[in-house]
Amino acid sequence: MQYHVNGHLVPAAEATVRVDDRGFLYGDAGFETCRAYDGTVFEWDAHRDRLVGTCETLGMGEAVPGDLRERIAATLDANDLDDAYVRVSVTRGVQPGKLTPDPAVDPSVVVIVKPLPRGGVGGESTWDDPATVRTVDRRRIPESAMPADAKTHNYLDGILARLELRDTDADEALIRDTEGFVAEGATSNVFVVADGVLKTPALSGPILPGVTRAVVLDLAADLDVPVETGAYGVETVRTADEAFLTNTTWEIRPVAAVDDVAVGGGPITDRLAAAFDRRVEAVHYRRG
Amino acid sequence: MQYHVNGHLVPAAEATVRVDDRGFLYGDAGFETCRAYDGTVFEWDAHRDRLVGTCETLGMGEAVPGDLRERIAATLDANDLDDAYVRVSVTRGVQPGKLTPDPAVDPSVVVIVKPLPRGGVGGESTWDDPATVRTVDRRRIPESAMPADAKTHNYLDGILARLELRDTDADEALIRDTEGFVAEGATSNVFVVADGVLKTPALSGPILPGVTRAVVLDLAADLDVPVETGAYGVETVRTADEAFLTNTTWEIRPVAAVDDVAVGGGPITDRLAAAFDRRVEAVHYRRG
Repeated sequence: MQYHVNGHLVPAAEATVRVDDRGFLYGDAGFETCRAYDGTVFEWDAHRDRLVGTCETLGMGEAVPGDLRERIAATLDANDLDDAYVRVSVTRGVQPGKLTPDPAVDPSVVVIVKPLPRGGVGGESTWDDPATVRTVDRRRIPESAMPADAKTHNYLDGILARLELRDTDADEALIRDTEGFVAEGATSNVFVVADGVLKTPALSGPILPGVTRAVVLDLAADLDVPVETGAYGVETVRTADEAFLTNTTWEIRPVAAVDDVAVGGGPITDRLAAAFDRRVEAVHYRRG
Repeated sequence: MQYHVNGHLVPAAEATVRVDDRGFLYGDAGFETCRAYDGTVFEWDAHRDRLVGTCETLGMGEAVPGDLRERIAATLDANDLDDAYVRVSVTRGVQPGKLTPDPAVDPSVVVIVKPLPRGGVGGESTWDDPATVRTVDRRRIPESAMPADAKTHNYLDGILARLELRDTDADEALIRDTEGFVAEGATSNVFVVADGVLKTPALSGPILPGVTRAVVLDLAADLDVPVETGAYGVETVRTADEAFLTNTTWEIRPVAAVDDVAVGGGPITDRLAAAFDRRVEAVHYRRG
């Protein structure tokens, strides 16, 4: 496998950053997890916009290189990959040794790729089974302490949430905000269906505005599925008719159970997943 | 300059970690900032204990190598440094590409050093002037979201606080908790003196238990300075008779002003600073 680091393709085992890169020292970096279908990144504009937004929050909006899409394409090409996981990181790079960032940024830009199965209609999911979800004690960081719409290398809150699942059968954490409302999973947004209405936590909470979340809301509008966003307790998920998680690699993944309470997908989850596949197929596999 | 990476001394510019090291991807790492005086690290046991505690919080307590002190000594020797800044990082290393950590950890261990002036009696401070402090909007992450006693590579909250000081004359941020009480600076603990009593935010708040903070409290007991810990508003700092900040490299740094209100050091700050210098001198410069 070859990765792309600061403008150069390098073998994965030799793809490095300096130990005094601020992305390493402090997690002072933005990133995006993208998915390529048939050689191009799905929802690239949304990912790029969010990455620029993250870097603007970090006071380095200009750090995202103009040719990032070309760097991704070169990395996919070098690895002969059409269907792939793509992670892009932009760090503040190496600076003089103070915590206060210098306005002059020479960013480190890293592209990591991994093969994924074909998506779209008749494609394969990246998960084997519906998710088993468990509510964890660890809460989402409130907006006053960390902007939730910035996707950064400070990802320990999700890791600590996942650590609580050790020695359980769960593979995703249900994380609440500090007021007790459902925020999201460690790497996913949460959706439920109740009485025919699709519900998901509103972005006014400490919730990453997931790219897949936005696509699903768009597809729901197309399919005339009524949508509600708001603040929900864990009970809303446990007692839902259907529940699913979304993220870029999972796409739409049904929730088998929450805290040992069976939930499962259902007809609306299935319709949205089929519509998602059709959209991917239409946008990316036109050549096939 | 030579750094120490995974058991080897390497020139600083070649000291790297892989881009798929979790310390880089997620800030999934603990670290300590230490200070060496005359060739050995001040309060090593306290730094080591906190690092082990951080790694235990991250579910990898065993990742801290038994010979870490020797690695630091080798790094100081290789650079011919007696008085130095020493940063030690222990990351979760490279693992299969999932967010959930694998219990089997092959950590990355990094030692970075930089020259500092001689400390102790008659030594030089690392800061030029007393600190100019400004209260920022960004709040400390509450304990329910992130344990405050873990010192990790997730350091963006401090960086975002410092970014608010751009275009001001301030060089340290006064950060409050989500309830509005004073927590700490971006890289320092806060002390004030009022009516002869030394006051500092209690560790029940979201506050890093600073090694220098603990030394100062110990010195205050030696000097019969009455101490109080509690929850204080910004007004307590603004209206204090004296105020100072502590951290490993600054030691004890008086606060010139908070939010344009002059505060300054004073007799108790001076006595504590002198006692600190004597302790450093007694522990480290016995040879000189």
